[in-house]
Amino acid sequence: MRNIRLTICYDGSDFHGWQRQPDFPSVQEALEMAVEQITGHRPDITASGRTDAGVHALGQVVHFFCPSRLAPEVLVRAINAKLPRSIRVLDAEDVPQAFHATLDARSKRYRYVIDNAPIPDPFRRRYSWHVGSRLDEAAMHRAAQALRGRHDFRSFETEWPNRTSSVRTILDIAVSRDGPVVTIEVEADGFLYNMVRSITGTLVLIGAGRRPESFAAEALAAQSRAAAGPTAPPQGLFLLLVRYGRTPATPLDEEGPPRPHLP
Amino acid sequence: MRNIRLTICYDGSDFHGWQRQPDFPSVQEALEMAVEQITGHRPDITASGRTDAGVHALGQVVHFFCPSRLAPEVLVRAINAKLPRSIRVLDAEDVPQAFHATLDARSKRYRYVIDNAPIPDPFRRRYSWHVGSRLDEAAMHRAAQALRGRHDFRSFETEWPNRTSSVRTILDIAVSRDGPVVTIEVEADGFLYNMVRSITGTLVLIGAGRRPESFAAEALAAQSRAAAGPTAPPQGLFLLLVRYGRTPATPLDEEGPPRPHLP
Repeated sequence: MRNIRLTICYDGSDFHGWQRQPDFPSVQEALEMAVEQITGHRPDITASGRTDAGVHALGQVVHFFCPSRLAPEVLVRAINAKLPRSIRVLDAEDVPQAFHATLDARSKRYRYVIDNAPIPDPFRRRYSWHVGSRLDEAAMHRAAQALRGRHDFRSFETEWPNRTSSVRTILDIAVSRDGPVVTIEVEADGFLYNMVRSITGTLVLIGAGRRPESFAAEALAAQSRAAAGPTAPPQGLFLLLVRYGRTPATPLDEEGPPRPHLP
Repeated sequence: MRNIRLTICYDGSDFHGWQRQPDFPSVQEALEMAVEQITGHRPDITASGRTDAGVHALGQVVHFFCPSRLAPEVLVRAINAKLPRSIRVLDAEDVPQAFHATLDARSKRYRYVIDNAPIPDPFRRRYSWHVGSRLDEAAMHRAAQALRGRHDFRSFETEWPNRTSSVRTILDIAVSRDGPVVTIEVEADGFLYNMVRSITGTLVLIGAGRRPESFAAEALAAQSRAAAGPTAPPQGLFLLLVRYGRTPATPLDEEGPPRPHLP
């Protein structure tokens, strides 16, 4: 059978996360059912990683084995025709048999969106965390650079200890503002449970002037979740993209990654 | 009692429109209940005009008589604390006893949002109409200028004849594009039922190359709803703002109206 890689986006609001589970709708189940209607074969779809209930994706990557002989561009349209409007396939391609969406991922990039307007925007409420205090995004950006590089991130992990190690490498971390919206982006070779949301809560305390700029570095060094900021809510989090291919020798320097169409 | 004017915004997705009705949630009822919790008095809230089920507002204006003595900025925060997150009060002010949100409105401006990306954006699905065919927004803009001025707009009215007259004055009409999003804005001294949605359906046929640029003028001249394009769906429509004050002598020329914070 062909190994098919799909790039998908989804509004996580109406699902209990990526992973198939009894009693609750999941993105995985909706996608598997749509693919089954097209290929006649119920697939096991493997994602680069699971996203939690309420978390969104702009560039999730999955793979599955497919008995159908439909061309990739036809697969995209056909699967989209069977999916709810909250999930879209952006791209499909044939990949080598050995390709694995989870194991071959070199890095993932997440974006966290904060609505920093004085009055919470009703149109952003499903897609951001409203923070009413004016945030100093420049201070947040400076403070965040302390998290760059290879560290034990257990202070930003809500289920520590885990099975293996909390050591990860943050390749890029940046905070910016566009009008009322403050955005945090983090790219790493892997993420711990609630890592971006914990980093976000930590940086927001700094941005609101309730902690000094050194707080992020101090929380990291304390090696304890209690030393860092709160866990930001899920609806502000977007899986932006997943990178595959050869391991880069050095951390990410380039001027931003390729951007899929963004809201 | 004080006459209070509120400027409000709302995501119309979860409501059956502005107007209070049995069995279905309405924006009016939600707002009246929130105000009652704050002032202790159930108000009759009058809006500049009704918005339909699924239609949104960025700058709806309402008035009501208020026994409370709370300062306007306190009213804003207090009412917001009792409202669902899908509705927000942006501003409150004391206005003369004679002020009437509907009768004193000089003009209203609507925006219609079209998602013109090849693949419908899941994050825009509640706030736009997805049109897959590439639209020529410049052609749509040129064609739309034929609707400017004082005309009988019965071709763009879905409940003709109405009680009075279908003659209105379009003060401004413009079509623009920002990336995948094509936006139509219409400002008029008053609107007929489904007028903006009918104009939108008409312009989209032109933009998709399925009708010539003269089609808008021809539909207007035909004086028949069947001669114009289809009625666009409600979720792309936003009441942008309402103008009050002295009647301007000439149509609107200025470089855009003051903009409330927009998604």
